[in-house]
Amino acid sequence: MTARLTSKSTAPVRQSSVRAHNLALVLSTVANSADRPSRAAVAAATGLTRATVSALVDDLVAGGLLTELDPAPRTGAGRPAIGLALTSAGPAGLGLEINVDYRAACVVDLTGAVRRRLVEHADQRPLTAGEALAALGRLAARARLDAEADGLTVAGAALAVPGLVTDGLVRVAPNLGWQDVDAPGLLRAVPELAGLPVTVDNEANLAALGELRVTGGDPTFLYISGEIGIGAGLVLDGDLYRGVRGWSGEIGHLTVFPDGRPCRCGAHGCLEQYAGQEALAADEPLAAKALGIALAAVVNLLDVPVIVLGGAFAPHFERLRAGIEAELRRRVLTAGLAPVRLRAAALGADAAVRGAADAAIREVRDDPAAWLRRAG
Amino acid sequence: MTARLTSKSTAPVRQSSVRAHNLALVLSTVANSADRPSRAAVAAATGLTRATVSALVDDLVAGGLLTELDPAPRTGAGRPAIGLALTSAGPAGLGLEINVDYRAACVVDLTGAVRRRLVEHADQRPLTAGEALAALGRLAARARLDAEADGLTVAGAALAVPGLVTDGLVRVAPNLGWQDVDAPGLLRAVPELAGLPVTVDNEANLAALGELRVTGGDPTFLYISGEIGIGAGLVLDGDLYRGVRGWSGEIGHLTVFPDGRPCRCGAHGCLEQYAGQEALAADEPLAAKALGIALAAVVNLLDVPVIVLGGAFAPHFERLRAGIEAELRRRVLTAGLAPVRLRAAALGADAAVRGAADAAIREVRDDPAAWLRRAG
Repeated sequence: MTARLTSKSTAPVRQSSVRAHNLALVLSTVANSADRPSRAAVAAATGLTRATVSALVDDLVAGGLLTELDPAPRTGAGRPAIGLALTSAGPAGLGLEINVDYRAACVVDLTGAVRRRLVEHADQRPLTAGEALAALGRLAARARLDAEADGLTVAGAALAVPGLVTDGLVRVAPNLGWQDVDAPGLLRAVPELAGLPVTVDNEANLAALGELRVTGGDPTFLYISGEIGIGAGLVLDGDLYRGVRGWSGEIGHLTVFPDGRPCRCGAHGCLEQYAGQEALAADEPLAAKALGIALAAVVNLLDVPVIVLGGAFAPHFERLRAGIEAELRRRVLTAGLAPVRLRAAALGADAAVRGAADAAIREVRDDPAAWLRRAG
Repeated sequence: MTARLTSKSTAPVRQSSVRAHNLALVLSTVANSADRPSRAAVAAATGLTRATVSALVDDLVAGGLLTELDPAPRTGAGRPAIGLALTSAGPAGLGLEINVDYRAACVVDLTGAVRRRLVEHADQRPLTAGEALAALGRLAARARLDAEADGLTVAGAALAVPGLVTDGLVRVAPNLGWQDVDAPGLLRAVPELAGLPVTVDNEANLAALGELRVTGGDPTFLYISGEIGIGAGLVLDGDLYRGVRGWSGEIGHLTVFPDGRPCRCGAHGCLEQYAGQEALAADEPLAAKALGIALAAVVNLLDVPVIVLGGAFAPHFERLRAGIEAELRRRVLTAGLAPVRLRAAALGADAAVRGAADAAIREVRDDPAAWLRRAG
């Protein structure tokens, strides 16, 4: 709030936090460049001195986060500069997903490229949370070993679950039958994953973040994911809106027919009962109508201009589209002023596990100094 | 993004923007103090030097924004300092509201105290937009003259309307029958209002801001306002969420019974048809049920912990409460983990016009330098 810079921290702490900030700044400047920028170009883009940039780049190259490559051919006089790029042989993020009828693992490198993807189809409902997570842990261990055989180092893992998550705990995952499950703790109990940082988040949230980062186009959208249950991730102005307790996006339990079918949650007429995977297979026009009613509520309430259909909705997109759009035209007050844009998830049914892998590697992108300390 | 301060602006511009920032900082520090702070206390709270604070305070006193009063009694040694407070005799904000069956004006001073409040009950629907705004303009002129007789200077006006507003234009106000109305322009055409800055916003948005600022308690809540139509203002983490085009909060057109009563908007089963003022008078339990279904959708989607009922809902609050809460318990997935808190608007049916007046005076609070230039 004040116009003067004041600091209560001691000088050495401040120096190291400036260095951490500047390392992240240099790394993101290289990551967001269309071409391979030179050290001088990074200095110009960041406002840092060339000497400072060179020292930071040296650290990032030594730590295996940046490589220096031959530049793209360039015209004009002078010695061509060496181009900088993110390395594809350094740290990697491990994305994990557990859902009602499958478990998945995915490894992405620092450039965002998918390096491994493993999926096992199996009904998770007969399993206890411990059994399901032990099986996922074995899949994760395999993905980690494969990645390390490629010369990658898995920096951390993020787990996507279809449920409510608070402070790293899965409070409720109704369709898995889970309650108060310490999913990261159970995963770290797998010997091959010991010592790995593991986080957990709602699957639709991670999928929405994945869509945001991979497509980069729309800063405000609702991502809706169809599985046995239905969840949503709400991205407002480029940020995921999680809600006060982290429980936003429970669109599967939005009432579409107040006196309709009973739901596992105890209510009647929830969207999930008309457009969840089983209902969708049974009656597609009714699923589209129910989705349209629920999505119209979202648009009337939030003025969201784009809706992204993911999970099991992605492969059904073209067949669902007309029915959903008809309800939106009918029920959105502003439909005549500006239509809502519907699209299938760019990441398809993989959005959640890709988003999870992206969240894991992003920890390194956002705080390379912490990675260099660990790696050194 | 960089760790170094760089500026492309010239030095004098930077100096004046620092002064503007610091004037606002000093004013808000005084405004947010529980007691009357001394100049030294303001210096300590802001991190500015005492000399800088004194020069800024002198300007704010000369410009009629601050007064110096005797301090509250204090213990301990030393000469008691003079206390600073916002003045109640300087600039004032003029709030205006036009709704289906009334028009209103309200003057608040810099301290937030209501100094004048005028309401005329009359059906606005037979009037053209020009006629309705001319009548409101006469009411506004009367409020302005009354305020000036009290020694206040009306700094600006804000108008609350039950409709969609973009870039100062009322795009649609279905219950008034308005379309593409330049409401600020028509108000400024009233001779007594000539030269006054006038803004326009959705009534539920202004009411939500009024509740946020007056009560100050909950940073995240939905404000829902019942009139002939129903609107909502969504406050997330202390900020009004307006949506991409400014059209958020159209909860009146959220579908509660998909094949239900026809609505003016062309859809069927809109909340407005079950809980708008006329429907509310006809069947209160059905109104409560419909409100509960719609509000459960909001909570499932956004994890909003508090709902504030305003407008015509405020006086009905105790009779609506049980019916709404029953639906929330039944339909909100997380109801068992943390109940939703319902309350009546602290500002009652006045929330929109009070919020409008507050928005107008806040322009002065947020940018006192601009006011000093105008007043000087």
